[in-house]
Amino acid sequence: MSVDGTKYVALCGGIGGAKLALGLAECLGSRLSIIVNTGDDFEHLGLAISPDIDTVVYTLAGIANPETGWGRAEESWSFMDALKQLGGPDWFQLGDKDLAMHVERTRWLAGGGTLSDFCKRIRRRLGIAPSILPMSDGPVRTRLQTAEGELAFQDYFVARKCEPSVSAIRYEGAETARPLKAARDALAAPDLGGVIICPSNPYLSVDPILSLPALRDALTGCAAPVIAVTPLIGGQAVKGPTAKLMKELGVEVSPRAVAKHYGALLDGFVLDEVDEEAAARIPLPVRIERTLMTDLDSKVALAGSAIAFCQALAASREVRQVGV
Amino acid sequence: MSVDGTKYVALCGGIGGAKLALGLAECLGSRLSIIVNTGDDFEHLGLAISPDIDTVVYTLAGIANPETGWGRAEESWSFMDALKQLGGPDWFQLGDKDLAMHVERTRWLAGGGTLSDFCKRIRRRLGIAPSILPMSDGPVRTRLQTAEGELAFQDYFVARKCEPSVSAIRYEGAETARPLKAARDALAAPDLGGVIICPSNPYLSVDPILSLPALRDALTGCAAPVIAVTPLIGGQAVKGPTAKLMKELGVEVSPRAVAKHYGALLDGFVLDEVDEEAAARIPLPVRIERTLMTDLDSKVALAGSAIAFCQALAASREVRQVGV
Repeated sequence: MSVDGTKYVALCGGIGGAKLALGLAECLGSRLSIIVNTGDDFEHLGLAISPDIDTVVYTLAGIANPETGWGRAEESWSFMDALKQLGGPDWFQLGDKDLAMHVERTRWLAGGGTLSDFCKRIRRRLGIAPSILPMSDGPVRTRLQTAEGELAFQDYFVARKCEPSVSAIRYEGAETARPLKAARDALAAPDLGGVIICPSNPYLSVDPILSLPALRDALTGCAAPVIAVTPLIGGQAVKGPTAKLMKELGVEVSPRAVAKHYGALLDGFVLDEVDEEAAARIPLPVRIERTLMTDLDSKVALAGSAIAFCQALAASREVRQVGV
Repeated sequence: MSVDGTKYVALCGGIGGAKLALGLAECLGSRLSIIVNTGDDFEHLGLAISPDIDTVVYTLAGIANPETGWGRAEESWSFMDALKQLGGPDWFQLGDKDLAMHVERTRWLAGGGTLSDFCKRIRRRLGIAPSILPMSDGPVRTRLQTAEGELAFQDYFVARKCEPSVSAIRYEGAETARPLKAARDALAAPDLGGVIICPSNPYLSVDPILSLPALRDALTGCAAPVIAVTPLIGGQAVKGPTAKLMKELGVEVSPRAVAKHYGALLDGFVLDEVDEEAAARIPLPVRIERTLMTDLDSKVALAGSAIAFCQALAASREVRQVGV
């Protein structure tokens, strides 16, 4: 994939998004900036945990657990076993290797460092080319209104396994948290070729990013094309509660509904080949692709297609501008 | 070993002391209280580490590493490997299982709990019969004046492997830290049968305890016999820098010097059989024993002997009192 010196931005959450982020990283290297959801972040056992950032970091460093999608490959669980033995809480799994990341991050933050600087440091340490940008250094916390009352994200997602029915979602702190300057700068870069919203859960992974007014504004006003890759294939998410959540929120479970959800932000939408017939009902330029990413080749292929789509959208925009 | 309902107190540090503490625990069960040195405690990676307490806890719970004496049996080291990979400090080894203790303790202390209450909780959880009493809930930190300047304990002991020559030792905070009430109560118990200073390093493990004025006073005024078990066998410590340190401090490397160091605190001294000829030069009742503890039997045997020695000293004291 050769795409000159143009830069790209990806927005992503955890597992699904990280897959495409890896494909994009293979294509773009250091020309990619990834703005990552921090709405799932929480403190557990006194440790600062950033699940989505870690999934992206581990995936891009080639040390992610290929079975689970989260955590590290060749992980061991002695810590959890000992924690249970001591009567500690065992509902959130922390592998022995993974723990090093949380301990180091907690130490960094306790010393007055920022989450984004920690990401920079880790990225260099693990030889990751793209920039990994937490959406904000300030806390934003996804909270879900459920049939069992309001739940913090991890209480819903991990402790309650996404079982409670969700009626509303809010992003606590979003109004006051300052988006990362590097994220705003990336979206305003004069040589930006496009913004790719990865196939992450729109409500739980992408919306927290969009809940930051300045980031949403930056996307809305972005000079480059903004596209989204469908998180639904044949009415289902590859992993996670996207379809269940859309149903509970009274939204049609379809790529069209996802496109509508992102609304005016989008300049294009990547639809899975199995949903080809839905293209006509999406009021946007649509690209049909195989979006299921099962290996590195399929990640790189989808990334290449997304980049090419951005290029095509930018070219047609230039044509229109020239035409005007 | 049958010794009615009488209570005993042991003073101890880490590895050497914990061996005798285990023997005493086998003999005495819940009638034993162990006052443990906390002068080695420190904060590392944002975690509250209490090396001597943990060695005693792991030893008494039967989960100590028999090779090293510190840390846990069947330990794994994935955390340390990952920490190194992330560029974290690797001079202090923290096993994956061991880490659970530090995380839980840190969390307990951060929540406003005391170290002694944490010990109580862990002791119950791991089914340990004796009371494990940190000498104080307040911080006391052993600091060593060396040829390389003043070093914190772990910097000297672990990072510098006890290599720098030591000219003086101080116990920072000892003047203001309040000794644990339970420790003072144990030493003042009317049914106290004796106090046993375990074969720990006198300067690094026992002196921090004795540096607390109220604990030293409680020992000096103790109604029951106070005995020490020699930490030296044939002029050498079984493990650790006791002999090297005594040399550097200009003290004769001998059981007699250890007895003299504890001075008026002591009512009796347990000497190793290889040092039998030194008995005459110790101005105290002396008991000759095999003090090398290589297995559980030898720990229990030495413990039994120490208890019997206390009983004999108490009996002769009663005889003297009756005689008066």
